[in-house]
Amino acid sequence: MDFVKTRIIAVGSELLTPFYQDTDSLYLTRRLNDLGLDVAEKSVVGDELENLVRAIREALDGADLVLVSGGLGPTDDDRTREAAASVFGLPLEFREDVFQVIEKRFIRRGKDMPAVNRKQADVIRGAEVLPNPNGTAPGQWLERDGKIVVLLPGPPHELEAMSEAQVWPRLAALKKGYLARVTLKSSGFTESELEVLIDGLYPRDSGRRLTVLAAPGQIEMHVSAFSDISESDARNRAEALAAELRGRLGRAVFSDDGAELEAVVGQRLSARGETVAVAESCTGGLVSRRLTSVPGSSGYFREGFITYANEAKTARLGVRAETLAAAGAVSAETAEAMAEGARSAAGTDYGLATTGIAGPSGGTDSKPVGLVFCAVAGAAGTAVERSVFLGDRLRVQRQASQKVLDMFRRILEEK
Amino acid sequence: MDFVKTRIIAVGSELLTPFYQDTDSLYLTRRLNDLGLDVAEKSVVGDELENLVRAIREALDGADLVLVSGGLGPTDDDRTREAAASVFGLPLEFREDVFQVIEKRFIRRGKDMPAVNRKQADVIRGAEVLPNPNGTAPGQWLERDGKIVVLLPGPPHELEAMSEAQVWPRLAALKKGYLARVTLKSSGFTESELEVLIDGLYPRDSGRRLTVLAAPGQIEMHVSAFSDISESDARNRAEALAAELRGRLGRAVFSDDGAELEAVVGQRLSARGETVAVAESCTGGLVSRRLTSVPGSSGYFREGFITYANEAKTARLGVRAETLAAAGAVSAETAEAMAEGARSAAGTDYGLATTGIAGPSGGTDSKPVGLVFCAVAGAAGTAVERSVFLGDRLRVQRQASQKVLDMFRRILEEK
Repeated sequence: MDFVKTRIIAVGSELLTPFYQDTDSLYLTRRLNDLGLDVAEKSVVGDELENLVRAIREALDGADLVLVSGGLGPTDDDRTREAAASVFGLPLEFREDVFQVIEKRFIRRGKDMPAVNRKQADVIRGAEVLPNPNGTAPGQWLERDGKIVVLLPGPPHELEAMSEAQVWPRLAALKKGYLARVTLKSSGFTESELEVLIDGLYPRDSGRRLTVLAAPGQIEMHVSAFSDISESDARNRAEALAAELRGRLGRAVFSDDGAELEAVVGQRLSARGETVAVAESCTGGLVSRRLTSVPGSSGYFREGFITYANEAKTARLGVRAETLAAAGAVSAETAEAMAEGARSAAGTDYGLATTGIAGPSGGTDSKPVGLVFCAVAGAAGTAVERSVFLGDRLRVQRQASQKVLDMFRRILEEK
Repeated sequence: MDFVKTRIIAVGSELLTPFYQDTDSLYLTRRLNDLGLDVAEKSVVGDELENLVRAIREALDGADLVLVSGGLGPTDDDRTREAAASVFGLPLEFREDVFQVIEKRFIRRGKDMPAVNRKQADVIRGAEVLPNPNGTAPGQWLERDGKIVVLLPGPPHELEAMSEAQVWPRLAALKKGYLARVTLKSSGFTESELEVLIDGLYPRDSGRRLTVLAAPGQIEMHVSAFSDISESDARNRAEALAAELRGRLGRAVFSDDGAELEAVVGQRLSARGETVAVAESCTGGLVSRRLTSVPGSSGYFREGFITYANEAKTARLGVRAETLAAAGAVSAETAEAMAEGARSAAGTDYGLATTGIAGPSGGTDSKPVGLVFCAVAGAAGTAVERSVFLGDRLRVQRQASQKVLDMFRRILEEK
């Protein structure tokens, strides 16, 4: 069986407000892509039966596989079962065995089952029931007229557990093929610089794909390769492209397993049994916050100094008043003294520092908003770099934190 | 004119990958809601002409107003103009005046206009052209057979500027009615506690709406009221409900103008001309990072101490080794000493502190993961509170930062 087209429908009136967004479809898309299936269209519909019926009918007109998330709950608003049955002109049948499973779930938790939950045992005639390990609403899998419709619960932890156990294995059995992926994360250049560097590497064969995603201070490259032959063929083809990218980008690539920069830095520090302290001015705690967001960071992160006021730079880090007066708080000299002061005060192997003008105010002609000095101090000496970042306050802070962590990562990798 | 139904279509193959999400529709929904218009359905389609034609046709079947975002660029992939014209059986006409505007944009920036951009001057016969102040792609507004189709550019800053200037005023002129909104943000209880507190306040009249959104440590209440009569009638009705909510929730409400907790704390400190320092253990810089994310925070935020190691708590904050040995680093005594130590070391009016077990490891029976002590020290004394937060490391850190900022906010409001 080869699917020409796949469509996803998210059901729920709350998804049509400005407050909620359908995220189930991102997970479904990722896992469909893993099977080599693309999504042709996504839609979000409210809880009204007529809209649901129309949406499912339209989706079936344009696709062979339709995944519907949401609307399987016990309330009057939950009409997905009814809508799907009506599209196929099939009856809903109450299934005693399904009912027992739902009731047991309540009994196990010492509760009485509300009468409304009874309707969750209604199954479209001919559909297979997909057990829900994390909730009361079972899913349904219906094959009919050469098309497949899958009804899934809306809550992500229910949808994901059910899909992993029931949906992807079934689709994999129907669909012959293998997919492999590699994600490279890199830091140290802009998106346009990257495009020049990787020129000619966008795959021309239809079975491979390269997607480039840029965030402030970070660029991700998602490589995927599909094979009809074997998993190792898919993996080899993905790895071949990833190797070419690594060859072009060199040390700018900091992870190929999804790890964030702060986790990579943490792994290197842990492996070496070394420690770090951080002195921050313009990033206001963001560098420390990123480092300490990693589980186990108390093993290498000793201390952070957020020295906004000049007096704090002097009292805590020993930055000399003359340096602050002559070069200014935002200067290479101050960044260097802060990094060295953090290392020495905390007694760590390394000290990191940031000082700059995050904005929106505080900029001058010679020191514009976005100017940041980053420093890394270690036993071998202190490195300082000057950058001018674009964007608003949070974007400047984010890029500065990325810059100092990337400088540190490169120093840790050098040795 | 009264719109029965509105639908939104987002165009772009990248929106059908796991990496990008359509966010334009959230903005469009919010502004449509402001006009009293609900969205009946949203969809995301790729760049292929046949899919686009089908999606627009389906949307027009079910709605009177269809907003289409994206696909107005200059490349071969940009087919929205063509698709909309084809749905109505209308020709695209090259408009010299529109072309001049596009070309001038390039000339102003000292560039030659690429030949491909010429197609952006193609206008559906009978459509009005919507100028794009932030890009080359003009929008189009087409009324036909009692239906309205609006074509808008995909990049949010282009779509939003164009909509503000061209779309909402036109719709407001067609649609009679007024909408007012109030957003209350609150802290200090769970969603189920809130539901009990506001029991009976969900409006029964169709012209008002209350939406409750819960995030870790924070609950937002969105009130909206629609009036056929006047803007002040709408405002009064929204305010009446907001006043009832405030009456029930009291001091738990910390903002009614969209401001975040860290900004509210900052406003209060600024107004009083007072200063703060922060000592953090389990939050690892998050409290400082939130406070310093607010523009102008250098006026009241002096210094942050991220004292992960016990030695740092002693050296920087003067927490006595006996306190750490007897009560432990995660204790009310240590939190109190940290807050007082931060205040005294930095010479500020207030000192905040957090110490706890963010997890995933480090918990014991008597001190489980999620246990956090928060403290606020001031001239009048030191307040300490003990909490046990649920969730993963980032969720515990987030709730702890919210807790200490909310304790501080209540103290600032008391005086």
